Formats: sequence, structure tokens, C-alpha cells
Amino acid sequence: MNTTHSLPSTPPSSLFLRACLGLEVERTPVWLMRQAGRYLPEYREVRKLAGDFLALCKTPELAARVTLQPIERFALDAAILFSDILVIPEAMGMTLTFLEGEGPHFPTPLNRPAELERLVLPDPEVQLGYVLRAVRTIRQQLPAPIPLIGFSGSPWTLATYMIEGGSSKKFTRIKTALYDDPHFLDALLERLAVAVTDYLNAQIDHGVAAVQLFDTWGGVLGPDEYRHFSLEPMARIIAGLKRLRPDGTRIPVILFSKGCGGYLETIAASGCDVIGLDWTTPLDQARSRLGPAIALQGNLDPAVLYAQPGRIRTEVGRVLGTMGGQNGHIFNLGHGIEPNVNPERVAVLVQTVHEESRRIKLNVVA
Amino acid sequence: MNTTHSLPSTPPSSLFLRACLGLEVERTPVWLMRQAGRYLPEYREVRKLAGDFLALCKTPELAARVTLQPIERFALDAAILFSDILVIPEAMGMTLTFLEGEGPHFPTPLNRPAELERLVLPDPEVQLGYVLRAVRTIRQQLPAPIPLIGFSGSPWTLATYMIEGGSSKKFTRIKTALYDDPHFLDALLERLAVAVTDYLNAQIDHGVAAVQLFDTWGGVLGPDEYRHFSLEPMARIIAGLKRLRPDGTRIPVILFSKGCGGYLETIAASGCDVIGLDWTTPLDQARSRLGPAIALQGNLDPAVLYAQPGRIRTEVGRVLGTMGGQNGHIFNLGHGIEPNVNPERVAVLVQTVHEESRRIKLNVVA
Repeated sequence: MNTTHSLPSTPPSSLFLRACLGLEVERTPVWLMRQAGRYLPEYREVRKLAGDFLALCKTPELAARVTLQPIERFALDAAILFSDILVIPEAMGMTLTFLEGEGPHFPTPLNRPAELERLVLPDPEVQLGYVLRAVRTIRQQLPAPIPLIGFSGSPWTLATYMIEGGSSKKFTRIKTALYDDPHFLDALLERLAVAVTDYLNAQIDHGVAAVQLFDTWGGVLGPDEYRHFSLEPMARIIAGLKRLRPDGTRIPVILFSKGCGGYLETIAASGCDVIGLDWTTPLDQARSRLGPAIALQGNLDPAVLYAQPGRIRTEVGRVLGTMGGQNGHIFNLGHGIEPNVNPERVAVLVQTVHEESRRIKLNVVA
Repeated sequence: MNTTHSLPSTPPSSLFLRACLGLEVERTPVWLMRQAGRYLPEYREVRKLAGDFLALCKTPELAARVTLQPIERFALDAAILFSDILVIPEAMGMTLTFLEGEGPHFPTPLNRPAELERLVLPDPEVQLGYVLRAVRTIRQQLPAPIPLIGFSGSPWTLATYMIEGGSSKKFTRIKTALYDDPHFLDALLERLAVAVTDYLNAQIDHGVAAVQLFDTWGGVLGPDEYRHFSLEPMARIIAGLKRLRPDGTRIPVILFSKGCGGYLETIAASGCDVIGLDWTTPLDQARSRLGPAIALQGNLDPAVLYAQPGRIRTEVGRVLGTMGGQNGHIFNLGHGIEPNVNPERVAVLVQTVHEESRRIKLNVVA
């Protein structure tokens, strides 16, 4: 599906980038979904400065500052751009608000095919210029060896918010569209796929070293619906990305569809380099189903961070143990860090990944 | 694990019971989770009479009436007792309220090991006598050939509500207990397993012909945690059930763990006769993983009921097609019917299962 796999590229020195490409590493690299966020008191300070959440996303200097905070605190192997997946629908012309404690809200959700005409195809340099300025600012301030990960929501996941009007438990409106008006949904997903491709390519142009597609809601679909409505638009995006930087380094693509452990073989056919796993699919099971050609990211249950340090060390060790020192693994949580986590527990996690994965690697070699 | 599999039993005549035991049937039997419920206008009438939801559960005549409503309307092959999974924690002494439009609420959730002492082991004939009276009333009024399914929540699922205080998205409190105080959680689950065993045996004594364990939240656990905290208590319940009626008929046990398609082999080892599947695991995939010795129940996405009749027929045909006329299948949804479904669409579903499964069976034989 993706022909860039065969293009020549310069082997990167970053542990994270090397692991994304399945190359030899001396220990397992680690970053954490939502590592820049509310669990950090220094984040909450900046958030207060910004006013509301969307203002924080839209102020490049502040977005850069919170992106760097976890890097300053922990020995993480990658930074991830601080932003929100819903900046895309907003850039397409939809009004977006974040109600305190209630999450995102689109007061006029998409309802009918005619409303697709309302949606503009954003020029990332214009409507999403604030994100690109944040990328440049972060790139200037981030220590050179640390790669910056860019990201976007998947078309399916973005569409759920745009049609439901916000977070959903039952996905009534989008599933009604799926079964009763699939052409409307296909047309929306196609527009989103184009917008996301442009957006991620612009992030790459401005300096991100890898990109991740967040497909938070792929798991609410059955296998055929997942393939058509979630995976295929993502595969079209991946096929349209600039996968090589001018300096010859390759841009890895991470695909994370939560709750889709049953669909790994489908996901592997998308052209992505790395599959993100939640904690319900063991890494060794995924590896034996997919082989070593695709890297894996994950997959500690974020709830383990509520535990005492000793238990965190045990559980991190269990996850690392399932990979047994094999290459092609990036340690992460199976979903984002929760806001009520104690940052000291995150330090325990990161330190354990460093020490324990190095130990396992040495034992494998010995 | 369960030795009653080898006990002699009289082959039942009900299509539903035959399918649970993998016996030959001339078409696929069908019932629907939450078939007695808010989508039916006649249910909403009775609910109004009762006052609140819990009062409806606790008034045997009214609970019986709503249990029978879907049987009067549709050609369903089984009735399921109208009740709620949370009657067990209430019978154990916890205060339970249902806030209109907000779901169940325990104002004083369980917090610490010492609070386990608050929980009584209910005598089903006393604290849950209203359920057993409903079972008897239904059994008197239900046409004799139609079996009545009894049910309970699984210990893990009940514990989530008891510890979180209601529905949860992140399961913070119970997962903290799981990692930080597993003995507390184990002790709670053990108490619940005993209470559920007694409760289901009492339902069997009073006339239910099969039982289902609803494990709505098993899927939030990783594989090892699922096995220990969700599956093992259910396996202990199953081992403690009266599996043969005095007349020699066997009581099938259905186990439904939502979102656990990755754990089917574990579930099959529980001693259950039937595994309920949500719509993310194709029936043919489950059958090839588990073999024909275990029956399967499911697995249409409940959202298909939002579609037009033609699409409903197509999707029902797809589900039946994955089984290709094999025995050991009970048609159902992959989760409960949603309240905003049009009952006429349910009629289309039921009629299609009858016609299409008969047609497939004839083609297989021919």
C-alpha cells in the first residue's frame, strides 16, 4: 500500500525514531500519551495564564512551553506537540467550545449532507498557522536529540465529534448516518482525510520528526465498518504524507486505534510504521500476529499510575517482559495519562523503563 | 472445570434451549438484550404506573407485565426477566437510587476494606423475594413453550458500580483498589460471587430455564486482570449453579463479557454453555477459535436498528451468514436495545432472523 517503505533513508540517532523503524536500540524508548497535561502543576499554571483550553492551544509560546514541561521533568525520549485533535474541525469552520469539566462541544453539529458545504478545506499555514508556529517554537527550544511528534485525530474520530456535537457514549447520530446515509459519511471522511493530510504534511514541513494518528473511537465499529470508515481514510492519509525529510531521515507514522486489538492485521496493512496498542492486547501476542516488520507502541494501563511505586515497577516490568528485549518497541501507556495522577509516579515509570529495559537487553545479548 | 457437562439430561424442545446446548434446530432462535424496555410505548406506560424504575423492578406484577410485552409483540424465542443488575448490591445493604436520565447512583460507595462488613449476604427469598415472585408470575403467564431467562450482573461489573458510586468512564477508584489493595477487591468479589450464586439458584428454583451473566465492564481490564478479577469469580458462580432441573432438563449458562473478544479462549474455560459476543468479533472467527462445543450468542450492532428496514435485513443476513447455518447460535444484539429505537424496526429484525435463518438451514441441507 505504501511504497515509501523501500526508499533509502539515513538511520536516525534518536532511540525513539530508531525503535519506530525497528532498528537496534540499547534500551526501550519511552514517551506517554498526554504527557503534557493537567497532571502537571506547571501545566495548570500556564493553563491559568492562557485563560481557556482553546486559547492555550492557540498561543504558540504557551503551547510550546507546556510541550516542553514533561521533557524538563522526566527522561522522556520524545516530545509530543501540545494541541487538540479538534482544531481541524474548527479550522474547517465549525464553532468549538470547551465547557469546563465537560469536554469539547460543537453547538451546531453536522446533520445533513448539505452542511458539508459549510466546511472549508483549511490551508494549514492560514487557519492552523498557530499550530505550525508552536511546532517551530518547540523545535527551537527542545534539545536537539529529542524528536518532536506531531499528530492529528483520525477522520472517523473527528467525525464522531462533529456529528455527535461532542463526546459520545452511544454514537447514535454517526451510526445512524453510517447505516442510513453512508455517502454523507464517506464524503465527510474524505474531506477530513484531505484536511488531515495537508495538516500533517505542514507539521512535517515545520519540523516534527514523526506523526501519530489518534483514532480514539475506531473500536466502536465492527470489523467491516472499521475497515471502511476508520482505517481506509487513515490509509489514504498515510499514502499522502511526506515520509522523507530533505536530510534523508524518514518520518515514521504511528497509528493508534483504541480498542482495536481484534483488527491488528487490518491496521498493519495501512502503511503505518508503528501500531499503538491499548492494554487489552499483549505485546507478544501482537508481535506474533504481525511479525517484526511493524513496530509496537504501548501498552501499560494508565490506571497503573494510581498504584504505589513498587507495583508500578512490577507492571512496567511485565510489559517490557512481554517484548523480551526485541527491537521495534516504544514504551507508552495504552491511553492518555489521567489528570489526577501524581507526577512522582510518572517519574517511577520512566526510570523503570530506562533501567529495566537496559537490563533485559543486556540479558538477551549475554 | 464444570463436571455437569457430562450429566445426562433430557433434550429440550425449545429452539432457544436447544441452540444453547448446540443441538439441531430448524432455524436460529432469537431474543434481544433489553427487549423489555423503554423503546416500547407499552413499557413506558407501565413504568409511569410504577413511579420510578426501582419501584417497577420491585413490583412483581408490573415486572412480569413488562417482561411479557415484547413476547406479545414479536416472535421471540425467549423471555428475559425484567430487573436490574444492581438489585444485588441493594439487597446487600447499599442505598441505591436511579436519578432520572442519569442512571444508577450509590450515594455511599464502598471505599475501604472495613466497609465490607456493612454488606450482608442476602437470602434471595427474603431480600430479593420480589424478583422471585416476578419469576413465578411470569412463568404462570408466559406461554409454556417460551423459556424464561434469568440473569445477574457479574461480580466485577457489580463491584464497579459499588466502588465508583455509579456508571464510570475511567474506573479510577476500582482500578486504584485493583492495583493498591487487591485483597479488598478480592474479598468483595468473593462475597458477590456467593451472593450471585445464591440468587441465580433461587431464580432457577422458581422457574427460569437458563441464566445469563452480564459482565458489561470486563473489557476495561487487561488479560491477566480480566482472568483474575472478572472471569474467575464468574467461573466460581457457574460451578455452584444447579445445572439440572428436577425434570432432567439442563439449565444453560450464557456468559456475556462486553469488549472481551480478545479473551474468548479464557471465557470458554469458565464452564459456560454459551458465550455472548458484541459486534466487534465475527461469529465465524469465534467459532473457529473455540470449536463447536460452545454455543455463541449475538452479535448485531444495536445501532443497526436505527437503519431503514432494507439495511436491517441486509445486516441481519450478514450476521446469520457468518454462521452459515451451523448449530449452536442464538441471534441477539451485541448489547442492549437503545431506548430511542422504533419498535417496528425490531419487528423487521425478528422476522428476518426467522425467514433468513430457515432459508440458510435449508440451503445447507440441500
